[in-house]
Amino acid sequence: MSIQQFSSALLENAVNEFAKLPGIGRKTALRLVLHLLKQSEKEVDDFGNSMIQLRKEIQYCNVCHNISDTEICNICSNQSRDKETVCVVENIKDVMSIENTQQFRGLYHVLGGIISPMDGIGPSDLEIESLVKRAEKEGVKEVIMALSTTMEGDTTNFYIFRKLAPLNIKITTIARGIAIGDELEYADEVTLGRSILNRVEFTNSFK
Amino acid sequence: MSIQQFSSALLENAVNEFAKLPGIGRKTALRLVLHLLKQSEKEVDDFGNSMIQLRKEIQYCNVCHNISDTEICNICSNQSRDKETVCVVENIKDVMSIENTQQFRGLYHVLGGIISPMDGIGPSDLEIESLVKRAEKEGVKEVIMALSTTMEGDTTNFYIFRKLAPLNIKITTIARGIAIGDELEYADEVTLGRSILNRVEFTNSFK
Repeated sequence: MSIQQFSSALLENAVNEFAKLPGIGRKTALRLVLHLLKQSEKEVDDFGNSMIQLRKEIQYCNVCHNISDTEICNICSNQSRDKETVCVVENIKDVMSIENTQQFRGLYHVLGGIISPMDGIGPSDLEIESLVKRAEKEGVKEVIMALSTTMEGDTTNFYIFRKLAPLNIKITTIARGIAIGDELEYADEVTLGRSILNRVEFTNSFK
Repeated sequence: MSIQQFSSALLENAVNEFAKLPGIGRKTALRLVLHLLKQSEKEVDDFGNSMIQLRKEIQYCNVCHNISDTEICNICSNQSRDKETVCVVENIKDVMSIENTQQFRGLYHVLGGIISPMDGIGPSDLEIESLVKRAEKEGVKEVIMALSTTMEGDTTNFYIFRKLAPLNIKITTIARGIAIGDELEYADEVTLGRSILNRVEFTNSFK
């Protein structure tokens, strides 16, 4: 069904706006709009304004560039966190993923992407300069790289590594290997190979 | 990944609002919100306001109860349409589907649902009384029933049939049968059986 005939320009406009969202086609857009139409006026106001207000008032932390309601985010301003360890990630979703593990007590640094010449993203488009400044000034002892294992991720890792090398800071990368619960049989060869090379002593893995 | 940790209450609020939509989980909601966050402030305003405005200003046609920007929708007010034929449908999506075929030049009557005692929907919750009044007053010669072939649909068909019977109006129902292009082998037995009972003369099918 191609949806061409709208009896209302307002409806058509709302459907068009929803259909701009990634992964939302025109049929889904229509379904969502008709659902909202059945809600109370207040509920629809809340829906629309939540997004408008977010876009208008959102800030990014001056230190780690994570999304925040204040100038310094609640992770950076948390006195109980380890300020000597900084985990470098691509985007704010990665921060959420790591926070959900409840295993990391250090701070973050959100690059805002990775170096990708194909997409025209160079080092100056990312928060790399601010990472180096932060590492110089704020007594950072360890930088943990947690970027994706793509060519772009490796390039970015290498670029940052060279920038930080003069500072005499410990630079680590998160462990790659077979996921817990996964069968070796179904693991890809690169991951399995690397998990053998980077094997850890038996006691370490139970820390 | 359960998303519990939000560094921004505004972000969390927007994700919660999106996750209320049917078929949108919290991960998808986050993805959509982060996408919108990358758009310009004007684009996000347009998105949110399109829905708020639709909910606030939407009207339903006084005649056929289709969604409309005006008191009488543009189908009912179109002078070139056949006012003697009224097609009864459940909802405005069905109007769109039939309009897209460009095969129907009559008017519609949107019931707003079907009789469903399980969901507490009785005849008085639907636009049945207004259909009968319309048929009495406005010189309607044929009513085409285009409801779904469920028990609820059949109940509604029967109820409307009894209400309209005294008026001496032709009452028809849309043809059910094997879809064009479908193989008989894969058709369900009820549909195939009915398509044999309701067979049409050869010339008719080429009209």
